[in-house]
Amino acid sequence: MSTIERLHTNQRMSQTVVHNDTIYLAGQVAADPSGGVADQTRQVLAQIDALLADVGSDKAQILMATIWLSDISTFADMNAAWDAWVPAGHTPARACVESRLAGEAWKVEIRVVAARA
Amino acid sequence: MSTIERLHTNQRMSQTVVHNDTIYLAGQVAADPSGGVADQTRQVLAQIDALLADVGSDKAQILMATIWLSDISTFADMNAAWDAWVPAGHTPARACVESRLAGEAWKVEIRVVAARA
Amino acid sequence: MSTIERLHTNQRMSQTVVHNDTIYLAGQVAADPSGGVADQTRQVLAQIDALLADVGSDKAQILMATIWLSDISTFADMNAAWDAWVPAGHTPARACVESRLAGEAWKVEIRVVAARA
Repeated sequence: MSTIERLHTNQRMSQTVVHNDTIYLAGQVAADPSGGVADQTRQVLAQIDALLADVGSDKAQILMATIWLSDISTFADMNAAWDAWVPAGHTPARACVESRLAGEAWKVEIRVVAARA
Repeated sequence: MSTIERLHTNQRMSQTVVHNDTIYLAGQVAADPSGGVADQTRQVLAQIDALLADVGSDKAQILMATIWLSDISTFADMNAAWDAWVPAGHTPARACVESRLAGEAWKVEIRVVAARA
Repeated sequence: MSTIERLHTNQRMSQTVVHNDTIYLAGQVAADPSGGVADQTRQVLAQIDALLADVGSDKAQILMATIWLSDISTFADMNAAWDAWVPAGHTPARACVESRLAGEAWKVEIRVVAARA
């Protein structure tokens, strides 16, 4: 029997959905988009930390990450923030591509799938 | 022992793949792309309803949705159709970005991962 | 108790992450990007074959594939290589959209989720 738990749920989406041992997070964008891509990436990763902590997991349990940059020329700046954050020996499968995001101010959106710890 | 079931399968892809308790649908685009993004979104969501019903599931079991819009300025129009469709209290994790789609006429493509009911 | 195995891991990402019965691969781009999209697609698919073989799986176990083309007008060329590669009766759920990739030379990136065989 499969079980589904949803957190931070509104009429459009849930920020977190847990199905059996797998955690799906909504795509995260920076709460404050006034800064550059490095600052926005750090905010997004902190939001992911917080959402995973809510369900007793953490960044060492991330299985897959999708990164969308509004401008792929910011790839190195995003990576500097990313590389400083991911735990050595526990890095996820990853893909990073360019796509315009839902608001012009947002420079990066990251979505992860993780394991329940 | 893991089990895989595939439905609506041709030489390129399957519309539905079920692995243990998880259902993966192919990205859906409107069968009739003559209308605007709201109309196309409603068609896509109806196609998702039908594909999930084929394997005994439904929209309340959707875990994660990826939405690609060919023009991100149609975000509000897509959301009007989306918000009217998703079941209160059972909304999935979601990400929505802009990407050109395989045919010029298509304005929206949606892919979901769901749980077996 | 969920288990996670990571292979081909560096400080940024892992090429392969296995969680219980599910395998997540990193987005693959061609090792040699000097050729056209058909050649790059063949390289990418061979890389996916090799990564799946490393964990005792194969292309008949692929559940979901995401294909990003830097130019959607190459859709038919990519599909010629794809259609020749996917095993009849075991084709995955698939989505293909346009996005600029991390390097200008890359014309196609493919990411798959597969089942442990």
